[in-house]
Amino acid sequence: MLIKVVEGSNIPVYRQIVVQLKALIDQGVIEVNKPLPSTRSLSKKMGINRGTIDRAYKELQAFGYLSSRPGSYHVVLNRKTEAVYSPDRKSDIPWQEASNLESNELFMDNKKRSIGGVPASMAVDSALVDLSKHQLDPRLLPIQDLKRCVNHILTKYGAKALDFCPAAGNDDLREYIAQRMRLHGISTCKDEILITNGSQEALSLLCQFLVRPGRKIVGESPTYFSVLTLLKFAKADLVGVPMNGEGMDLDHLERVLGKESVSFIYTIPNFQNPTGITTSHHHRERLLGLAVKYKVPIVEDGFEEEMKYYGKVPLPIKSIDERNVVIYVGTFTKSLFPGIRIGWINADKECIDRLTAIKQCTHLRCSNFSQMVLWYFCKEGYYDLHIRKLHRVFRKRMDTAHSIMQKSFPEKVSWSRPAGGYNFWVRMPKKLTPRQLCNYMAGHGVIVTPGAYFFLDQTESEYFRISLARINDDEIKEGLARLGKALRQLSVEI
Amino acid sequence: MLIKVVEGSNIPVYRQIVVQLKALIDQGVIEVNKPLPSTRSLSKKMGINRGTIDRAYKELQAFGYLSSRPGSYHVVLNRKTEAVYSPDRKSDIPWQEASNLESNELFMDNKKRSIGGVPASMAVDSALVDLSKHQLDPRLLPIQDLKRCVNHILTKYGAKALDFCPAAGNDDLREYIAQRMRLHGISTCKDEILITNGSQEALSLLCQFLVRPGRKIVGESPTYFSVLTLLKFAKADLVGVPMNGEGMDLDHLERVLGKESVSFIYTIPNFQNPTGITTSHHHRERLLGLAVKYKVPIVEDGFEEEMKYYGKVPLPIKSIDERNVVIYVGTFTKSLFPGIRIGWINADKECIDRLTAIKQCTHLRCSNFSQMVLWYFCKEGYYDLHIRKLHRVFRKRMDTAHSIMQKSFPEKVSWSRPAGGYNFWVRMPKKLTPRQLCNYMAGHGVIVTPGAYFFLDQTESEYFRISLARINDDEIKEGLARLGKALRQLSVEI
Repeated sequence: MLIKVVEGSNIPVYRQIVVQLKALIDQGVIEVNKPLPSTRSLSKKMGINRGTIDRAYKELQAFGYLSSRPGSYHVVLNRKTEAVYSPDRKSDIPWQEASNLESNELFMDNKKRSIGGVPASMAVDSALVDLSKHQLDPRLLPIQDLKRCVNHILTKYGAKALDFCPAAGNDDLREYIAQRMRLHGISTCKDEILITNGSQEALSLLCQFLVRPGRKIVGESPTYFSVLTLLKFAKADLVGVPMNGEGMDLDHLERVLGKESVSFIYTIPNFQNPTGITTSHHHRERLLGLAVKYKVPIVEDGFEEEMKYYGKVPLPIKSIDERNVVIYVGTFTKSLFPGIRIGWINADKECIDRLTAIKQCTHLRCSNFSQMVLWYFCKEGYYDLHIRKLHRVFRKRMDTAHSIMQKSFPEKVSWSRPAGGYNFWVRMPKKLTPRQLCNYMAGHGVIVTPGAYFFLDQTESEYFRISLARINDDEIKEGLARLGKALRQLSVEI
Repeated sequence: MLIKVVEGSNIPVYRQIVVQLKALIDQGVIEVNKPLPSTRSLSKKMGINRGTIDRAYKELQAFGYLSSRPGSYHVVLNRKTEAVYSPDRKSDIPWQEASNLESNELFMDNKKRSIGGVPASMAVDSALVDLSKHQLDPRLLPIQDLKRCVNHILTKYGAKALDFCPAAGNDDLREYIAQRMRLHGISTCKDEILITNGSQEALSLLCQFLVRPGRKIVGESPTYFSVLTLLKFAKADLVGVPMNGEGMDLDHLERVLGKESVSFIYTIPNFQNPTGITTSHHHRERLLGLAVKYKVPIVEDGFEEEMKYYGKVPLPIKSIDERNVVIYVGTFTKSLFPGIRIGWINADKECIDRLTAIKQCTHLRCSNFSQMVLWYFCKEGYYDLHIRKLHRVFRKRMDTAHSIMQKSFPEKVSWSRPAGGYNFWVRMPKKLTPRQLCNYMAGHGVIVTPGAYFFLDQTESEYFRISLARINDDEIKEGLARLGKALRQLSVEI
């Protein structure tokens, strides 16, 4: 036998024997159908405890290397050897055929454009100023405050925080969110709150709850592209209602509601993504009135509710929702930590109970640890401190950007100044396909998000979106200077 | 005017004015269509800066309380008052009709039984010994080690850990998992790993990827009840293949594969939930052979891969999967922190890419913070330490339980001793409905999980499952003594 055992190694002796015997069998050194020496004789030969040999043989038996007739010799079996990874190994499964139609279409659509609408190759080129990313600047995150909270939670509530929580979420966090909603004029309680993995899961649960054949979903056109993707994947039939300067065209909406059976109306009332439009209180009242009249739920996406840094923004539709027809979606991801994905749904209790059943079925529950840490962070006032800081920073960024744009963008280019949030929606004097736009802008050293991605028909558009979420004042100056130059050349070329 | 302002309060003066004016308007003290005093006159009267009054009026305008014709008086508008929560307020939306069929059915099914199969009222009764819960005992969690890791991560990688990560997951964690899979005989790399929110999301993604009309899903019968729920919600047509003592009856499986079009075969090869059966290496080889022959993917649920505390357990099917037809699902939730929900899928790269598109569409990505903390925890060897501890603890719990059961369970009751994991699958001499069983057992001071829940037909069964995951030796002794008494009485009654 060619086995060598190292005493005092980190690896137990029986394991050393297993690994070496396996290798000898896999390599064919020990032949199939041949018996191995008995545990007694091997034990004697190697000077090793017989129990150790026995343990090794038992493991080899379990692994399928040895026969296991009791009382007789262990015979080496014909066993499939372990599969070895190689980067170009292929699967016997034709995944495209295995896939259902909607997931195949999703995959093919994704291949055409890349994540977030910007070709992946560009997104990593650090020479470009990236005006496309919509996640909060990591330089602004309150890391020290979080650290204090995590330590407190682990010291005081360790076993609880690391244990599971109810499907609807951690009760303390639900209670806190219910309280915080009151800050925004919404009177609610914990039973009307469901915790989700960010607002994307919230919207996903709503699709799984409400999308059904024969009914339409109504949304603003243009709208958040991740919602377009999600609705398409959910086989939802989306009707886009055009935006005018005030928000969704409500006359148009009423005509749709009058003739179609509708599952829900999806709206982003504050700094709409991508147009930046904030609807007025009276627009909100009329929209709510239509929903009540036609008994259609409104899904109100308040993902940037906290980012009202200019003040003067109406309260959520949910705040005047006495008939309980509004399903409000909120999140900490956009205004706090992009790396801790916690969002929520606030709606009528029966609606929450039904959504909780789907949450439990598809995900069981959210991470309790993240929830408790966020709860304590908020409760101790760190969230308010952070929001105040963000307001200062983004008021300045937005002002800086706006004044540069006024100076350096040519006359034929237009945009409006949002009442908060991170984005500008810019109109060029020319329609471009996403590819044309991305390539043209990359040639001038900037990345923007093509407007076409926010429409149902994603072929071409005269719009693009720029975001200030991740870039500081210097980067804003440099990026917008480049963008201004690009736009001036584009205007001349026309 | 009845407004009083407190100087030096935490609440800014303009806010105090807003709140009080809102209340006066809501209560009808200030009438609709009446003009408010001009900012100039109110400023004089109250001795407050005019800019402050102006800011308050602007906010009331945004909130829809005041008209906003420039240059004229602000007139009070007819505005919907804020809705006020009450526990018995109703919604105008008939949620049952709004819901699609599958989510309504899910909700109704859930109402019938409660979460985890045990009536909620019993699950909170502390006088009962709960043998139903399958989440790891919080007393065993390595909280101090985690604390050390979290602090290191936040100190060294704070901004990165709290930022977003790619849709497929944090690269360091994916790399670590790929390495760790090798411990279990699986040769793979990071590109074949997708991070999920626990294994339930993994299974949910697989349904969204592979379930399609006209194709069946094949699984063991009985099987994990959360998978039954998930498959039903996904409108999957499940064919249950009976278990014999060796695992899924492979002759039966081959007949199904020969005549049906099948999306995937779902199997739990180790300590199957609920039966506790561990299949042999040769069973695994034959199952894999069938999958390759019929070009049907196997979904291998390895949720307790690390819980092989008796040794002698075969390697995963994935380890010999040279044709790349096995989709392996793993998780940290069952063996580490129930409160940090991180799992993964390990499969052919194209399969992972397609699943990643669905992950991104429905959830964007997992929490990067949780992933980085787990990565560091594992990399530093704390996971291995913890697993060694769990092995010691559960070997002892399992041995204790088994010997008590041998002594105190009557002859007509049978079970087999699993090769690891947390569960026993116990057969009584009598069929009971879940309600009968739960009530009978509660009468004897214990909670068990009714076996019926693990079958497609959930009406009645002679089986139940007990779990040792959350109870220590004393609780095991007490719980099994009560259970033994209950079973002895049940035997006598027959």
